Amino acid sequence: MEDVTSWVNAIWLLLGTCLVFFMQAGFAMVETGFTRAKNAGNIIMKNLMDFAVGSIIYWILGFSLMFGDSIGGFIGAPYLLDGWSGNSNFVWIIFQTVFCATAATIVSGAMAERTKFSAYLIYSFCISAFIYPVVGHWVWGGGWLANLSTPFHDYAGSTVVHSVGGWCALVGAKVLGPRIGKYGKDGKSNPIPGHSLTLGALGVFILWFGWFGFNPASSADGTNVLLNGRVFVTTNIAAAVAATTTMIVTWVKYKKPDVSMTLNGALAGLVGITAGCDMVSAWGAMAIGLICGIVVVIVIELLDHKLKIDDPVGAVGVHCGCGVVGTLCVGLFAVEGGLFYGGGASLLLSQIIGVVSVAAWTIICISILFAIIKKTIGLRVSPEEEIEGLDICEHGLSSSYADFEVKA
Amino acid sequence: MEDVTSWVNAIWLLLGTCLVFFMQAGFAMVETGFTRAKNAGNIIMKNLMDFAVGSIIYWILGFSLMFGDSIGGFIGAPYLLDGWSGNSNFVWIIFQTVFCATAATIVSGAMAERTKFSAYLIYSFCISAFIYPVVGHWVWGGGWLANLSTPFHDYAGSTVVHSVGGWCALVGAKVLGPRIGKYGKDGKSNPIPGHSLTLGALGVFILWFGWFGFNPASSADGTNVLLNGRVFVTTNIAAAVAATTTMIVTWVKYKKPDVSMTLNGALAGLVGITAGCDMVSAWGAMAIGLICGIVVVIVIELLDHKLKIDDPVGAVGVHCGCGVVGTLCVGLFAVEGGLFYGGGASLLLSQIIGVVSVAAWTIICISILFAIIKKTIGLRVSPEEEIEGLDICEHGLSSSYADFEVKA
Amino acid sequence: MEDVTSWVNAIWLLLGTCLVFFMQAGFAMVETGFTRAKNAGNIIMKNLMDFAVGSIIYWILGFSLMFGDSIGGFIGAPYLLDGWSGNSNFVWIIFQTVFCATAATIVSGAMAERTKFSAYLIYSFCISAFIYPVVGHWVWGGGWLANLSTPFHDYAGSTVVHSVGGWCALVGAKVLGPRIGKYGKDGKSNPIPGHSLTLGALGVFILWFGWFGFNPASSADGTNVLLNGRVFVTTNIAAAVAATTTMIVTWVKYKKPDVSMTLNGALAGLVGITAGCDMVSAWGAMAIGLICGIVVVIVIELLDHKLKIDDPVGAVGVHCGCGVVGTLCVGLFAVEGGLFYGGGASLLLSQIIGVVSVAAWTIICISILFAIIKKTIGLRVSPEEEIEGLDICEHGLSSSYADFEVKA
Repeated sequence: MEDVTSWVNAIWLLLGTCLVFFMQAGFAMVETGFTRAKNAGNIIMKNLMDFAVGSIIYWILGFSLMFGDSIGGFIGAPYLLDGWSGNSNFVWIIFQTVFCATAATIVSGAMAERTKFSAYLIYSFCISAFIYPVVGHWVWGGGWLANLSTPFHDYAGSTVVHSVGGWCALVGAKVLGPRIGKYGKDGKSNPIPGHSLTLGALGVFILWFGWFGFNPASSADGTNVLLNGRVFVTTNIAAAVAATTTMIVTWVKYKKPDVSMTLNGALAGLVGITAGCDMVSAWGAMAIGLICGIVVVIVIELLDHKLKIDDPVGAVGVHCGCGVVGTLCVGLFAVEGGLFYGGGASLLLSQIIGVVSVAAWTIICISILFAIIKKTIGLRVSPEEEIEGLDICEHGLSSSYADFEVKA
Repeated sequence: MEDVTSWVNAIWLLLGTCLVFFMQAGFAMVETGFTRAKNAGNIIMKNLMDFAVGSIIYWILGFSLMFGDSIGGFIGAPYLLDGWSGNSNFVWIIFQTVFCATAATIVSGAMAERTKFSAYLIYSFCISAFIYPVVGHWVWGGGWLANLSTPFHDYAGSTVVHSVGGWCALVGAKVLGPRIGKYGKDGKSNPIPGHSLTLGALGVFILWFGWFGFNPASSADGTNVLLNGRVFVTTNIAAAVAATTTMIVTWVKYKKPDVSMTLNGALAGLVGITAGCDMVSAWGAMAIGLICGIVVVIVIELLDHKLKIDDPVGAVGVHCGCGVVGTLCVGLFAVEGGLFYGGGASLLLSQIIGVVSVAAWTIICISILFAIIKKTIGLRVSPEEEIEGLDICEHGLSSSYADFEVKA
Repeated sequence: MEDVTSWVNAIWLLLGTCLVFFMQAGFAMVETGFTRAKNAGNIIMKNLMDFAVGSIIYWILGFSLMFGDSIGGFIGAPYLLDGWSGNSNFVWIIFQTVFCATAATIVSGAMAERTKFSAYLIYSFCISAFIYPVVGHWVWGGGWLANLSTPFHDYAGSTVVHSVGGWCALVGAKVLGPRIGKYGKDGKSNPIPGHSLTLGALGVFILWFGWFGFNPASSADGTNVLLNGRVFVTTNIAAAVAATTTMIVTWVKYKKPDVSMTLNGALAGLVGITAGCDMVSAWGAMAIGLICGIVVVIVIELLDHKLKIDDPVGAVGVHCGCGVVGTLCVGLFAVEGGLFYGGGASLLLSQIIGVVSVAAWTIICISILFAIIKKTIGLRVSPEEEIEGLDICEHGLSSSYADFEVKA
């Protein structure tokens, strides 16, 4: 019977691994679809290489920093994985590897169309090697946030994965500055439409599909039918409500239902439900979807119009905004322990502590990192390169590639 | 042991859920690929929102109408699902949710490029809330068709899912009328090519992939290895034979093997085998594939040339034509009970009753619904909007989106 | 308990079947993305039809030639499958069917943009009916290579699937000759860029995703958690290292990291690790990834610049080059039996015998076949047709399809 449990759990985690891996394709399609064709090759190259480089360094270093023996609750003790015999749990490692890669890949969207490829490789490497594993250790590796008197709860990573990626995206977009032409002399924001809504939408469908691995398989337990089924339901319904909410919000605000914002609305619901998908009821999931469907619009507009931070694909609104809000919502909507269910404020307090400390850690680390990169190899391509497009300048693509795709 | 069975069944159904969900991406790619770029944003928005809205209403109402205590064999008694505790079977609910969404999404292809988005939302809502659940109750919810002396047999939904979507598509395309420019003054049909065969083909591959969830997981039983394996084989071989048949038919008829028709041929085989994939042998599946590969061409040409019903993507031929024919074929090819296997005509008779009654129900409901929509908010965009494209008029997309995709 | 094992194994193989099937979409996207839009419809038609035709003939003939009672270790005795009752193992058959289709589909990329569609159907049929099943029998069907004193080891098909496809691709590209305009009068190679790097990249992500079925499910054993987990890890890490290696190689060589070559680098690692993913450690997988990431560049450049064999998508470098090298690497890096692990040279010798004999068989068969096709119906379209594009000439697509996609 113990054997059977291990078989079922392995299949459950490996199925999840497949689905979460495929989210890389989703991110690639969203980011390339929502940006201009002249940078398409660069964007897919970034998405491919952050996964490749991240897989290697997470195997060599990141996994042990995350799950090694805790050093004061802050970080795991590094050790070299055994690549062959049974004392290393390969199923668990590969599942964690594809999770790590998700955090790293979020950043590229917000910094699209103007970041140097070499700079991208370096910070992407550091996120997978160190920044993400430390946060992962705090929450999932037995670190200090897991040991609060009321433990911080982040089931599948609204904070650990999405807000880490989202904070890096925010800092990156701010440090880089806006794309040429994004803001007029009067400071007005000019929309820079992407080259294929269809590919962007395909990306969102792929991500939604992948989320059925991301959230349910985080149980690491294929035998808990009630839990896994419920996580499927809460995940799906939060995404559905969020997309619907965002559609309505944009319909009211802009007089017409906005396509790209609604696509981001679906992602907002998925990010938001990720922390509490196991602890909220389907009705709680609807509430979270509703909140995230509004929050994503507010944050994207705030960045675009007020803060003048140029995030081409809306990654900060989706992953940072809704990662944070979704994590806090666990403190409100958790059936066991949530404020609205009579559980008092202690869980909510832990959630706040977790969100703030992860934000502080991530922002500090990535700011230092970007500062170093800026001082040394530089973070941004030259204006000429940016105008010509990164495909030609960074990758030597014959202009005909961009031509075939854009025909501008 | 009972536990293990429940684990295996849950994984089986949840894997199926993932695959069937992903069919939404397949439909989106088929529909956008086979239509013009100026409506691409509109089409993907419809595909996204029918799933989002359908998921919500099916949770709140549709599921209980389908599986609640039967009221006279006609409809289930509505009740509110418990979103948290174990008395609701979440695995079953989410699996049924993605099925429901498939029925709803079929319609958008046939009514593409001229339907108001608000009208689409309303009828899509009604299909998921009421029209589909009632049919589902008749066949899968213990309703009257399941209680015929020889029960109507529709394993995974040739009739319940595809013909319901297909009949709605037929009525919708008829009520809407053809797109501007589709029929010349002499009544001749003008082809209006889609903007990307490649994306259309990607959609077909995704749908075929998704069908390996749609049909096999309909056993709801991961322990029946013989049955599940056979369903994989019959599903695959019917699709393969149908695609090959359609290719040959078009090669003979048009002198050249037609790409988009052959793609529809693959879908035709998949739709046709869906009802009987558990009851026919691999050889029977070949026969069904052969029949459906011919039927899809006949129905698409009949609509296009004779009936002058403009179905941009061929949805009626695929889902209605082959949904009906495939369901009837169960009465002929079922190894146990089929006419050709010495089982007499009673199963065939039940299949005819099922097909006709579902058609009558669906056509009546959707006709009333479309009449109401037409009288109130209107079903079709203005000619100016249709010519300019729905992306600009319905969603306020800057023209540049369409420009980037079409360059017309 | 025996029952449970069979359930778990069935789910494992059927999950693998889904993933491997989906690789067809990956090949279609890679091949269409890396070639010109005027041939996009033709390429996806080939990808669809090789799977359809291959599925049918492999069911009728190929499977039994591969797994039937061995006739002298060379070929299985043909028999007709029972399409209904339990004496045929449907799960195993459908899993093998999608594998067979992979071998067949590799060829189309190398012969893209100039091969007659009818000729393609014929040789694709013969690969699935005969050429591939014989090799499969040698290695996986109890044939002579499986019965060497140290059996030839090819876990998931670096040789059986990929090199068979790759050798056919090499012969085909050579026999066909280069595309018009590929080589100037001075013999210099002109790049002919594909029409969508984005779709090509999507294809690579889909293939990587599918490989998580291709390799792990080849255990046919869902209960071996250690093995399956390790195969996931080695597969992923070889691909990651290979992509990174290729990126670095092109960066050094061309001064800029090349996108399409790096995408092929990922595939190179996947092909290379396929033979030994069960027998090498994660560190061995890294070594194999490193080697394949270099080999793929060398082979692609060798063909392109020295041998003047025009392989539009680099299929020979990926599938033949790395299929061969990866198979040989098993003899070096296998933890049990590999030369570098003190296992002596006997495994390496068997690997050489396997690689050479499969190459000889495949090259001889396909050369005869291509010679016959060339003499009879012809292998290549006319120069006029090639210039106009195969979509129009071979499939009667109105020029507008290509127009919408290329706008040239």
